[in-house]
Amino acid sequence: MARTPKPLIRTDIAYSTPDRIVVRGKDLPNEVLGHMNLGDFAFLQLTGKAATREQSAMFNAILITLVEHGMTPSAIAARMTYAGAPESLQAAVAAGLCGLGSVFVGSMEGACRMLSEALPDAQGGAAHADLEQIARDTVAAYRARGASVPGLGHPLHKPVDPRTPRLFQLAAENGMSGAYVRLMQLIGAEAERVSGKSLPINATGAIGAICCEFGFPWRIVRGFGVMARAIGLVGHLMEEGEKPMAIEIWQRIEDEASAHLRGEA
Amino acid sequence: MARTPKPLIRTDIAYSTPDRIVVRGKDLPNEVLGHMNLGDFAFLQLTGKAATREQSAMFNAILITLVEHGMTPSAIAARMTYAGAPESLQAAVAAGLCGLGSVFVGSMEGACRMLSEALPDAQGGAAHADLEQIARDTVAAYRARGASVPGLGHPLHKPVDPRTPRLFQLAAENGMSGAYVRLMQLIGAEAERVSGKSLPINATGAIGAICCEFGFPWRIVRGFGVMARAIGLVGHLMEEGEKPMAIEIWQRIEDEASAHLRGEA
Amino acid sequence: MARTPKPLIRTDIAYSTPDRIVVRGKDLPNEVLGHMNLGDFAFLQLTGKAATREQSAMFNAILITLVEHGMTPSAIAARMTYAGAPESLQAAVAAGLCGLGSVFVGSMEGACRMLSEALPDAQGGAAHADLEQIARDTVAAYRARGASVPGLGHPLHKPVDPRTPRLFQLAAENGMSGAYVRLMQLIGAEAERVSGKSLPINATGAIGAICCEFGFPWRIVRGFGVMARAIGLVGHLMEEGEKPMAIEIWQRIEDEASAHLRGEA
Amino acid sequence: MARTPKPLIRTDIAYSTPDRIVVRGKDLPNEVLGHMNLGDFAFLQLTGKAATREQSAMFNAILITLVEHGMTPSAIAARMTYAGAPESLQAAVAAGLCGLGSVFVGSMEGACRMLSEALPDAQGGAAHADLEQIARDTVAAYRARGASVPGLGHPLHKPVDPRTPRLFQLAAENGMSGAYVRLMQLIGAEAERVSGKSLPINATGAIGAICCEFGFPWRIVRGFGVMARAIGLVGHLMEEGEKPMAIEIWQRIEDEASAHLRGEA
Repeated sequence: MARTPKPLIRTDIAYSTPDRIVVRGKDLPNEVLGHMNLGDFAFLQLTGKAATREQSAMFNAILITLVEHGMTPSAIAARMTYAGAPESLQAAVAAGLCGLGSVFVGSMEGACRMLSEALPDAQGGAAHADLEQIARDTVAAYRARGASVPGLGHPLHKPVDPRTPRLFQLAAENGMSGAYVRLMQLIGAEAERVSGKSLPINATGAIGAICCEFGFPWRIVRGFGVMARAIGLVGHLMEEGEKPMAIEIWQRIEDEASAHLRGEA
Repeated sequence: MARTPKPLIRTDIAYSTPDRIVVRGKDLPNEVLGHMNLGDFAFLQLTGKAATREQSAMFNAILITLVEHGMTPSAIAARMTYAGAPESLQAAVAAGLCGLGSVFVGSMEGACRMLSEALPDAQGGAAHADLEQIARDTVAAYRARGASVPGLGHPLHKPVDPRTPRLFQLAAENGMSGAYVRLMQLIGAEAERVSGKSLPINATGAIGAICCEFGFPWRIVRGFGVMARAIGLVGHLMEEGEKPMAIEIWQRIEDEASAHLRGEA
Repeated sequence: MARTPKPLIRTDIAYSTPDRIVVRGKDLPNEVLGHMNLGDFAFLQLTGKAATREQSAMFNAILITLVEHGMTPSAIAARMTYAGAPESLQAAVAAGLCGLGSVFVGSMEGACRMLSEALPDAQGGAAHADLEQIARDTVAAYRARGASVPGLGHPLHKPVDPRTPRLFQLAAENGMSGAYVRLMQLIGAEAERVSGKSLPINATGAIGAICCEFGFPWRIVRGFGVMARAIGLVGHLMEEGEKPMAIEIWQRIEDEASAHLRGEA
Repeated sequence: MARTPKPLIRTDIAYSTPDRIVVRGKDLPNEVLGHMNLGDFAFLQLTGKAATREQSAMFNAILITLVEHGMTPSAIAARMTYAGAPESLQAAVAAGLCGLGSVFVGSMEGACRMLSEALPDAQGGAAHADLEQIARDTVAAYRARGASVPGLGHPLHKPVDPRTPRLFQLAAENGMSGAYVRLMQLIGAEAERVSGKSLPINATGAIGAICCEFGFPWRIVRGFGVMARAIGLVGHLMEEGEKPMAIEIWQRIEDEASAHLRGEA
């Protein structure tokens, strides 16, 4: 019997006809516009499912947490780019996004990966695993290879990252404070115990744990930071257009960095 | 009397202290998380003001309209990039954003610019200008220089872009159907009259007009498309990770494009 | 009579078979490697023609001039990006390139466009046009619309940009000092005369003129800056990897920019 | 005794004064332009040293090999981006570069890393190590963890990648066929022996080995691919501007990918 060949170029996200635009099975003008907020639509776009009330509250909070982190290297890169190509705002946002890699957004991905690998398939129900033992084993494994546990510690926010208790509170209110959140907390406590250092769970640790509660694959979690930060960067570029700082930054750096070559330092 | 020198490196968007994170004057954990949706926070990030209920409804609808437009060149570029560097999801989104320029997002910016230059300062109140005359003059000016009027016509959505009546309905329901929306409609009618062609107001024309009602400067309007599309692209990359098409597309194009050089065509 | 349909997906640049790799008609391993330098191969890739000895000397000099311009906004953006995603060196180079737009590379494109539009088809032969009159008309047209003449003036290199006489000397030695170089010089002199200011022809003005002598279309001239700067940026990233400055720059900017929000300034 | 604090923002690459531009200690107009080719200047920019005649020949050949690889995903991404933002050629090149990551350029970096870790400090002199034993151990280690040996095998170029013998020939002619090239060859032979498959050393394997002979750190080797490909991409965009294929590709993919959603397949 003939088998239908696997379709090789195929999307399940969206389609259009002359009078319709359908995204994830919903008629965009009539079933989405005016009925959903942007965070809910992001959830639909990514998962193919409409967010429940609880998922909506939690997912919007996660994304909002990731929008704006101050004058980051990413924001500086975007502003520098805009100074050179103000006609290409999209390229300035792109430049800012390019640096959201292993150093600055990676810990969110890392925390989600650590938790989902330590505790496969606990999403959506109580885990009967011995979470304390898993926490000890996990921290020991990171220490054995000389690596930091992702999602712990913050250079500024000490002894508590103020986003973390609020995110965990929202998780509890929305039925998403399960085994992964508990495991993250146990890992944090264990890491503090064995290191003797203050290692608060930071926002990326909290988000990593909640993403596990959602059941998101760890590979896509970085994407939440990327799409949220795109919003933040447009805000920075709007400000740069009105009150520029990029040229001043450039001139100071240029002057300082090559002073010794010019015989001035 | 001494004047305080102008501060040269200064942002008004956000700041952090050990126990606080404040964006646009609001305490992020306590005043934002759990209280706002992503679209509202984008409005706050960009304007420094909390959205009213009406602004929230309208701004979320605008951004949602811009998230997903199918297998666009932007989505294809992002998927191609992800195939080569799956460890750098952020760079794949960046690659997809780089093409949101004059051809595909430009008409939104163009419509907003056309309307705001034709009718300065009508935002937030009734314009007593002769809108019909302005519409005639505007269309005539574009025709005189052989240019298309931005925001009109669509290759697929004929005779009506289904997003436009819905966006205008939401504008009316939320008190934002003022002189700019009216002017866009008059310009559309005039362009159809003088060209003899069906030229429906497309989604970018509708959004351009509503952005004028908001009072957004036209230079930032492209940014709405950029930040919304970042969400859409993460959705495409999540799908590409699960059901890839990039390698198949590459091989077909490679085969076809150089067949004549290999003596096969 | 049947017409062959136009091939829609077709490249004339390169092809491969199991035992051959052919670029622009040349066997890469046997006819190119060991026989050409990188600038010559860039010329072949772009034009489909092997550079003459004179074209080789001139084109290599143009590209080299564009590689390294110090701690530019482009270099800062690349370094900032590398600090966040050191595993994605390619994305850091991409971020640095994104800002090579209208402000920093545009004047090269602008000069080439100005000259080629003022003097169509003079490439490769003597122009019998009245170059002095064209120079006066060109400068007058820019002044009439309040625009700067591209390719003139430099914030640091006064009264002479040291690259310009050398590039023009090389053009003369290689038979490329024709009507476009002469016109650029006349335009510079006329602009100084009518403005009363010192307006030396800068490197981008010199390169724009020489690109006209080559017959390059102005739309691709920006590309020379882009490909040369990619080399320069890899150099900056190699240095950033060994002696980083990005984190220090970030912290200084973060501290200064939000000091007033933290009540410190 | 007081110590001079470490300078935190400092470059050793280049500086300018009103009448001078100096890169890596050389006066750009007078000591570089007209005296070097682009590949040599890239070598100077990256290493701070003038290339010897042999280094010049070899380094130019390496970079040229990496410029043009046909209608790659990178070239397709760049063309797609250019179709949307033709006014931002730099962003189209940037988009094309973003995908030069672990899949397509990574094997070059991987080969260089494998060889330099297997044989530290053999650059510039004869290695007295037992290269055959190292080759056996290296291949065994990759097989033990189920990984492919980088730099071996090619989907099209079988049984020989035609670039490899030519690159190794040039290495021999220029005094750079030392222990690393020999080790790469032994690893290739060993991998073929234990796998029973044809695994020719591909161009990235050959380049990885020769980069070790140069003494380049493996982290920067990806950068050679990035800067070379920037040249290739400008060539593709020049062709796209004259004979576009991006819109045709887009429409075919859009039609095919969503046919099943429209009920057509």
